[in-house]
Amino acid sequence: MVDIIHRVGIKASPEKVYSALTTLEGLAHWWTEDTEGNAALGGTIRFSFRSPAGDFIGKMAMTVQELKAPDEVRWLCTEGPSDWVGTSITFQLSRQDNQTIVLFGHRNWAESTEFMAHCSMKWATFLLSLRAYVETGAGKPSPGDLKIDNWN
Amino acid sequence: MVDIIHRVGIKASPEKVYSALTTLEGLAHWWTEDTEGNAALGGTIRFSFRSPAGDFIGKMAMTVQELKAPDEVRWLCTEGPSDWVGTSITFQLSRQDNQTIVLFGHRNWAESTEFMAHCSMKWATFLLSLRAYVETGAGKPSPGDLKIDNWN
Repeated sequence: MVDIIHRVGIKASPEKVYSALTTLEGLAHWWTEDTEGNAALGGTIRFSFRSPAGDFIGKMAMTVQELKAPDEVRWLCTEGPSDWVGTSITFQLSRQDNQTIVLFGHRNWAESTEFMAHCSMKWATFLLSLRAYVETGAGKPSPGDLKIDNWN
Repeated sequence: MVDIIHRVGIKASPEKVYSALTTLEGLAHWWTEDTEGNAALGGTIRFSFRSPAGDFIGKMAMTVQELKAPDEVRWLCTEGPSDWVGTSITFQLSRQDNQTIVLFGHRNWAESTEFMAHCSMKWATFLLSLRAYVETGAGKPSPGDLKIDNWN
C-alpha cells in the first residue's frame, strides 16, 4: 500500500478550516461545486467533476468515517475511479505559529501509478484552493479548478 | 522505502523542458536562484535556499546520475536534510496531447513523515513554477517561491 501525503498551513482558526472540510457548502467552495449528500458521521458525500465546458469527468462517493472537531476528518472512498475505491482520505489539523496546519493523506493505494502521480499533484492544487477559500473566501473548485496536465 | 510522485503537463517541447532541468540557468529560474556547480553527467549541482528576507534555509547537493535527452534526468542527493541524503530525484518526460508530461519522483525516503508531506506539497508548487517558467519565462524560484506552511 502506498500513500499521498501533503502538508499546508492556513492563516485561519482550526474551526474555520474544519468547517470547510465538513460541510457541503465548505467543500463546494474548494473541491467541486457539485457536492451533495450527508456530511455527518456515517453519511455519504457525493462529489461530481466536470470540465469548464460542462463535460462529465468523474464522481466519487465518500463515507464519513471520523469527525473529531476541530482536529480530524476521515473519509472512506466507496465509489469512484477503481484505484480510489477502498482508499482513505484524512485531514489532521493542528495549530502552529499562528497557522492551522493541515496534514493531508490519501492512503492505501494498491500501487504507485502514473494516475496516482496525477492525483498527488491535483490534491496539492486543491489544498491551495482550500487555503485560498478559507483565507480569502475564494477557492478554485471544479469546474474552475487549475488544470495540471492532459488528464485534468 | 516511500516515494513522492507528481505528474504535470507543460505546453512546450520536451527539449525546452529538458533544458530547464539540466542547465544551471534553467534550474535557477524555477527551483532556486542560488544554483551552482556542474550540471553535466557525473557532476554535482549545489542548490541553496533563502527566505525572502535573506535568511539561510538550507542547501542540497545533487549528483547527476542520468541524462537521456530529452526523456529522463536522475539526481542522487548527496548533501542536504538528513532525510534527503541517499534519495533520488527523477524527471521522466513524454509527449501527449501536445503537452510535455513530466513524471516527477522523489524516491527512497526511509519513512513517511510530516516533513515528507511538506516536501511533497512544496515539490508540487515548484513543478507549477517549472511549468510557468517554461511556458511564460517567469517561474517562482527561491527566495520568491510560494510559501506553503510555517516551515517554508
